Formats: sequence, C-alpha cells, structure tokens
Amino acid sequence: MRSVSIIGFGCTQFAEHWCKSFRQLIAEAGIEAMMNAKIEGKAIEALYGGSMASGRFVGQEHIGALIADQLGLTPIPATRVENACASGGTALRTGYMAIKSGEHDVVAVGGIEKMTDVGTDQAAIALGGAGDQETELFHGASFPALYALMARKHMEEFGTTEEQMAQVAVKNHHNAMFNPKAQFHREITVQDVMESGYVASPLKLLDCAPITDGAAAVILCETEKARKICEQPIEIIAAEQASDSLSLAGRKSLTETMAAKVAAKKAFEKTGLTAKDIDFAEVHDCFTIAEIFAIEALGFCEKGQGGKFTEQGKTALDGEIPINTSGGLKGKGHPVGATGIAQAVELCLQLQGKAEKRQIKDAKIGLAHNVGGSGATCTIHIFRALEGKK
Amino acid sequence: MRSVSIIGFGCTQFAEHWCKSFRQLIAEAGIEAMMNAKIEGKAIEALYGGSMASGRFVGQEHIGALIADQLGLTPIPATRVENACASGGTALRTGYMAIKSGEHDVVAVGGIEKMTDVGTDQAAIALGGAGDQETELFHGASFPALYALMARKHMEEFGTTEEQMAQVAVKNHHNAMFNPKAQFHREITVQDVMESGYVASPLKLLDCAPITDGAAAVILCETEKARKICEQPIEIIAAEQASDSLSLAGRKSLTETMAAKVAAKKAFEKTGLTAKDIDFAEVHDCFTIAEIFAIEALGFCEKGQGGKFTEQGKTALDGEIPINTSGGLKGKGHPVGATGIAQAVELCLQLQGKAEKRQIKDAKIGLAHNVGGSGATCTIHIFRALEGKK
Repeated sequence: MRSVSIIGFGCTQFAEHWCKSFRQLIAEAGIEAMMNAKIEGKAIEALYGGSMASGRFVGQEHIGALIADQLGLTPIPATRVENACASGGTALRTGYMAIKSGEHDVVAVGGIEKMTDVGTDQAAIALGGAGDQETELFHGASFPALYALMARKHMEEFGTTEEQMAQVAVKNHHNAMFNPKAQFHREITVQDVMESGYVASPLKLLDCAPITDGAAAVILCETEKARKICEQPIEIIAAEQASDSLSLAGRKSLTETMAAKVAAKKAFEKTGLTAKDIDFAEVHDCFTIAEIFAIEALGFCEKGQGGKFTEQGKTALDGEIPINTSGGLKGKGHPVGATGIAQAVELCLQLQGKAEKRQIKDAKIGLAHNVGGSGATCTIHIFRALEGKK
Repeated sequence: MRSVSIIGFGCTQFAEHWCKSFRQLIAEAGIEAMMNAKIEGKAIEALYGGSMASGRFVGQEHIGALIADQLGLTPIPATRVENACASGGTALRTGYMAIKSGEHDVVAVGGIEKMTDVGTDQAAIALGGAGDQETELFHGASFPALYALMARKHMEEFGTTEEQMAQVAVKNHHNAMFNPKAQFHREITVQDVMESGYVASPLKLLDCAPITDGAAAVILCETEKARKICEQPIEIIAAEQASDSLSLAGRKSLTETMAAKVAAKKAFEKTGLTAKDIDFAEVHDCFTIAEIFAIEALGFCEKGQGGKFTEQGKTALDGEIPINTSGGLKGKGHPVGATGIAQAVELCLQLQGKAEKRQIKDAKIGLAHNVGGSGATCTIHIFRALEGKK
C-alpha cells in the first residue's frame, strides 16, 4: 500500500487583508509551499483547493482552475473541495487519496478564504450555509447561536463554566503570541473574555474565532519518493473523515460530536495508536466550547471534563497534551477554507522542530481535527516525522 | 491496479421543479441508484456530491453532509466537489480515485443543482462565477457572451455558420424526444432556432441550454466485487481531467479547448483507444457551439469541421458517431452540478442496452465530456460494458 508524506508547506499571514486579493493570497501560500518543498511547478501533477464559500465571499466559483492558472500549473487536474469549515481538511484527505490511488505522485493541496470583501451580515449568512439553512439559518440560528446551544447543554450536563471556556481563549491568544503569522498578537485574561459582550449567550465576543483572510498550502508526495527528495518528510499515517446530521435537531446528543468520535476511532484503529500517543494537536476551536468538545471527542480527557482539563492547564504549551500551539482558530484566525491546511502546516513545523518559541519538546506525533458546520463533518489526520535524505 | 465499475444509477426528471426541494431531488436520484444497484445504504462507504453553486442557488453550502444525512448514510465520509459545470464529472473522478486508493470499495457519487429558486438575473450572476469574475463577469461578460466570442471566432476562422450551430440544437431536441427524463419534448427546426431572439450574437435563445433543476447518482464499486454482485457492471476504463486559464483572455486560442484536448489525449493513451473506437459520446453542449468544439477536441472530426460534420448528420442517432443520445444539455436540460453524472447515467443505459427508442446498436464503448466554465476544466470518462454475474 502506498504511503503519502508532506514535503513542503506555506501559509500567508492570517489577517484582515484589505489590500490583497483572493489571487494574491493563493500565490503567496502556493509559492511558499513550492519553495519550501524545493520543487518547481512542473513537478506537481494535480491540485485540490478547499474553500467554503468563495461564491458568496468573492463572487467566484470554479477556483480549482483559478488556482492552477494563478500558479502557472495548467493543464493539471485542479479541483475545488468544499465541506464548510472542514474544506481544508477534506481537500487534504482527497489529495492523499489521489496519491494512494496511484494516479498521481506529487499533489498540491491548498485552502483559502477571503472573507472581508463582504460585510459582517453577509458573512454571517454565508457562514450560516454550513449549517442547515432550512431548519436553522432561516429561523435566525446563525453559527454562534448553534454553538451557544451546545455550550448551554454542556454547562447543564457537566457543570462546565463560562470561565472554563474563557480559559481556552486565554491559552490560544497566549500561544498566538509566538506565531508570527497569527491574526492576533495580544494576550487576554479570563476577565477580558468575561467582560466582552454576549454574541449568543453564553458565548461572548472573545469566545468566538474572528473573520479572517488567508491561505495555506502543502505539497504531498508518495513517501518513497519523498524520502529521496526531502530532508524532513512528514508522513500522513491516518486521514479519516466522517459525517453527521447537518442540523443540531438531527443529532443524538448535543454534547457529543459523533463525526469527530467516529473519524478519531478509525484513525486510532488504523495506526494502532491511542490518544496517549499523540504529542500535541491542532483542534477546531471556532468557539471556545468547540475546543472542549474536541479534546473530549479525541479522548485526551473524559467526557464532560474538557472545561476542568483546560482550567488545570493540561492543554497549555507546557501541559500534558498541548492543544492549538499555533494559537488555534481563536488566536491565529479562521479563514474557513484555509483552516484545515493551516493546521497541517503547524503540525509540520512542530514535527520538524521549527516552531520556534512555541516548539513542543520531542514532538514526534501530531493530530489535526477539522470540523465543518456545527459538527456535521470532521476530518482527523495524524502525522509523524520521518527520516529523509541526508 | 484496482479497477472501478458502476453497479447502479439513478436520475430525476430534468425540469423546472417548482414543487420539489433540493433535498427531495437528492433523495429521488440517490434512492433510484441504490435500488438499481440492488444494494442497501449500509453498503456505501463514502460519497461525493457535485454541485456548482448551491450556496447562491439555495443558500446551502456543506451539501456533502446534507446528502449523507438525507439518504441515511451518516457517518460515512461525505464530500462536496465543485468545478463549475464540470462538478459532476469531477465528483465522478474523485469517487473513482477513492476506490482506486484502496480506502473504499463502494462509493456513491451524485450531482445536483436546484437553479429555479432564484430569479434569472441572480442565476446569471451565479453561473458567471464559473468564468473569471474579475476580468469577465464584472464587466458584463456572462456565459452566453463568452461562448458568443468563441463562436464568432470559429465562424471567422473556419466558416462555421449559424445554421450549422442550429443543427446541434435540432438534433439534441430530436434525441430528447426519446428520453422520458428530458426537460424538453418538443422537436424544433433550424428555422425555429434562427428565428429565436439573440441572447449574445451569434447565439440565439435556442442555441442555449436551459436553466434546470435535477439530480443524478451512480454507485461505484471495485470491479472484482462488481462482477460478483451486478449483472451488467459498466467499467470506467479512463477518468481524466485537465485545466486551462479561467478567463478567455488567458487562452492560447479561442477556437480550441485545450483542457478537453489534454484530458482526451490522456484517456486515449491510457486505454490504447482512438476516437474511432468510441461508439457514442455525451458531450457538454451548454451552447450549440460548445458541441462543435467538443467533437473537434475529441477527434471525431477535423479541427474546424465540426459545423459541417453536424450538418451532414454524422452525429445523429443513426450517424457515424452519435453525440448526445440523451438529448444533451440542450434537450435534456442542464442542472449544472448534475450534468456530469447524468452523462454517466446515459452511458450506462446505452451500454446496458436499456436506452429504449434512442438505443445505439452494438454500443460497447462510450465517452463522456464534461466542461466547467468556458473550458477551464474538462473531465473525460470512457466506459465499457462488462460481463457480470449470471
């Protein structure tokens, strides 16, 4: 069975890019990834681009061909993949399968979202399309409202507090201080979060990931070949994905993200690993409560204990299982289609020992958890560092 | 190397479905495909859904999970694939690679577009997102205008006439008479086309494929398994895809669709076949001139001769190479994301000898040509009939 590794990666500054276009962001991330991989464009045989709502954010569908064109890669097969905020993670898994299929040896995978070309109202409606527009958005349930329902239920069932959720934001803003590409470089306190205005009770402004522009890219390569051309290939040892009811109303439980649990279970089964073998993880903290759901679904702590686990500092940079060393969606920013690929970039930096001031000691195995909507899609990837060419 | 076959297929009526929702169309096509394959939902391991602009047509992104949910298939991996009007063909190739990769044995692939929930002006803007919105749509160049430029250049270079283009529409409306699922059941004449109003000169109303609602689905299976469970499996012997500049301004030629040529060349090389070995083809006639471009790119006739070739009846049901036996996009209808899958359904019907009054004699090998935008994406699939279980 063929194996797949990452041989290069790139990521733009995450920010509100008022002066950079959709095409410019693609060029920056794509060229950085190719330079990092030390390959030329002609080596790339296919590309997959994740973007959630390019149609509604920048009026442009058909961005597979746009990316190929912009990077001078035509006539290679170029495809857009969309699974809401899990578009990046899904594109990564699709590129991984393209290499496993034997159809291609070197594949570029990118993620992009340019969200600030529309107003906040339009952005909220576009993002609401990640949930069920008929039974949720149409009735006013935009994304903060959906996660607020999930948070309220978690508080009721397990005694999770608003202060515990705030700790997620405090930690991720702290981690983002050490990530030059993060959108925010500002420490915040629990008090800051508690005093920020309610968006949808119990979620306050500082519980919510921001609106962000950005792009990220990785270059995938069949592993035997990767070992010959790359000094520090990062092997993708699991790429799993699962689905759940699009609407919250269709879920069996409001305090469990089944798609994440199913995908994680498969990833652990395939690799023979358990949660204890993971050295660090990037998880989908679109809202602070989402990180608590994530660490429970992944088995880093007991169900219902995510709030306490966070409060105890176990997910900090120097904790038992560092979570979102990059700053996460909250601190680094959340250009929705790019997020899954940006998580992969952080895993590569950590596993290559290049994460500078946020570097985890002896990082050998990392996990990425990327969620679409309120949990209807989840992708789980596990990476490990390989020995490459000398 | 693993091989992939189709074991079942389904397609809704193509029409303006004022009384059916996006979800209903998915259910109809998906259930028909599963019943045709004689499998239950639990046999399906993953799904890929092609849709061009569900966000702008029905306010819904994240339709992978929606489809899985609607068909009772959660928690399988479910992914939306988008490449404008080639979304269906691209989804088919993505599903094909998922089986080739060894990750899955049985995969459902669908295509859907519900286009009539918005007005024609909004539809034109959404469809314009298949071209370059910065250099084309923003300046008023909607899709008929882009194909009109290509048509005008073909007329100038090769002497192609408006009457020859009209012949494409006349033939495809004729073929659609024998397809109960087609949107139009009305014969038209060259005079009808010539007397219809100009949309973008030289293209008239009856040169243009309609706005359509519809969905189609196929069930893919690893071929060894397919032979055991299916009486008439249809093997996908080539699945190729290529890209070109998104905007017409970036193309080397206005009278040649390079993505189609590149993908077709690869498909012929991989199978050892030539255009002469193809018994019939479904091609992307979003405008009549597009069918002329297609038959030239595929090598069914000489470059520049597509108009004459059509006029001579060589692409008719009883011609040298029957093109668009289903009625094509012009006669059958063009729900953009569904079109590539509907083409696959027609190939299956013909290869299984079930195309009734439009059946081609001794149809052994069929080809599908699905285009995104004004040619920036093209997928080419070649199918052949296999012996299955007795």
